Amino acid sequence: MGETKRCLKLTVAYDGTAYHGWAVQPAVHGPTIQGTMQEALGRLTGEALTLVAASRTDAGVHARGQVVVLTTASRIPLERWPQAANGVLPDDIAVLRAEEAAPGFDPRREAAYKTYTYTIYNSTTPDVFHHRYSYQVYRPLAAEPMARAAGYFVGTHDFRAFAAAGGAAKTTVRTVYRCRVKQEGPWIKIEVTANGFLYHMVRIIAGTLLEVGLGRLAPEDVPYILRSGCRALAGPTAPPRGLCLERVVFRPTSLDS
Amino acid sequence: MGETKRCLKLTVAYDGTAYHGWAVQPAVHGPTIQGTMQEALGRLTGEALTLVAASRTDAGVHARGQVVVLTTASRIPLERWPQAANGVLPDDIAVLRAEEAAPGFDPRREAAYKTYTYTIYNSTTPDVFHHRYSYQVYRPLAAEPMARAAGYFVGTHDFRAFAAAGGAAKTTVRTVYRCRVKQEGPWIKIEVTANGFLYHMVRIIAGTLLEVGLGRLAPEDVPYILRSGCRALAGPTAPPRGLCLERVVFRPTSLDS
Repeated sequence: MGETKRCLKLTVAYDGTAYHGWAVQPAVHGPTIQGTMQEALGRLTGEALTLVAASRTDAGVHARGQVVVLTTASRIPLERWPQAANGVLPDDIAVLRAEEAAPGFDPRREAAYKTYTYTIYNSTTPDVFHHRYSYQVYRPLAAEPMARAAGYFVGTHDFRAFAAAGGAAKTTVRTVYRCRVKQEGPWIKIEVTANGFLYHMVRIIAGTLLEVGLGRLAPEDVPYILRSGCRALAGPTAPPRGLCLERVVFRPTSLDS
Repeated sequence: MGETKRCLKLTVAYDGTAYHGWAVQPAVHGPTIQGTMQEALGRLTGEALTLVAASRTDAGVHARGQVVVLTTASRIPLERWPQAANGVLPDDIAVLRAEEAAPGFDPRREAAYKTYTYTIYNSTTPDVFHHRYSYQVYRPLAAEPMARAAGYFVGTHDFRAFAAAGGAAKTTVRTVYRCRVKQEGPWIKIEVTANGFLYHMVRIIAGTLLEVGLGRLAPEDVPYILRSGCRALAGPTAPPRGLCLERVVFRPTSLDS
């Protein structure tokens, strides 16, 4: 009698501008990505769905490769899932891909590493088509020292100085596999890949690299700030609009055979 | 005694998504670009300003190079105008450049030609970061016949078949200097340069080229539709979100010496 339930892994992109972040929170007024997706996909399958994301992005943060997992008895064929889901989702949330996952697959626990980008638009002229997806800095930034400073984040460090209060992490040690800065005209893009991120970690790294770009910190200050463990020594938290979750890579053991 | 008034020519970009087009209209509820700019720049200069645009873009249409003219007694130096204006304008409207124009300069009468682009996103997967600025077409389009069809619009023709009712033009004859189609991955961009445009003309050209791309019209149908003068033979009006006013070029006699 029992229905066969499947565990689905959706790759999702969203423009986070209109949302109060990923997670449904009782005290928060206004739409969340999780709430909006649960409601829309629940209508699609006729179930009360609970969605789990690899990364709980903050209010205003975007995603090109968020991974969202759900368990459903729906018989919609896997290859039809993206189009069926996009038919019920709003224009600023899109399912790019659907795959089957092992029952009980937890995208948070199984993530081996994640990549975020932080996009800075360094110009005095506004760009009306990109202002939702970038942080405009008016004063000229020196990208070369920013790139050198970024190199100091690579490795296993205690990132306590680069975490906001309010995170629930047991340890503040994380491993950054890659941290680089690329400039193309007025665009400066910071890319950070790590095995995990503390609360606001990428935005504080971005804010610190901005201080370096403005000449208010030296690249060599970064290892000192890391060792200090002191949040006050790092730069300010850069605004969410520049941040985007690019991709999540899972442990090989979690790959579907 | 008399204040010295100057005529200013502003190059303006906007994301038209949130606006009911350029022109303030008594019967229209909701913000317009003209109304929003008049209010913001009027606050800046302390005057009741009347802004005149080279092109009265429709609701939802964007601009990268709209030209807006105003007459002001403000002593804000010319080179400070863009930043001063952007300080009071919302994020989706930006002044890119300010120049002085001859007194009484009329950007509609003095325009020699204008270029519009129409951006099509040809994919079954939504793009959440570009959906405000493009029209998504799910069925595969053949860009090569679209490019051939586009060539037939070049020249001086009666464009009656490519005009919506409601325009105030005295004649429906226009000269198209360039009309081309470029494909880059899932993006198909139509670019049209003409000495003037009838009401909805670019959007009907785009809708007709889409019919060609879908195989429902042949490129060789275009000259026939032009000669027919019959709106019903042309394609549907493509939605406004894909349309962008790229630039306005003025007659040499109107250039400031």
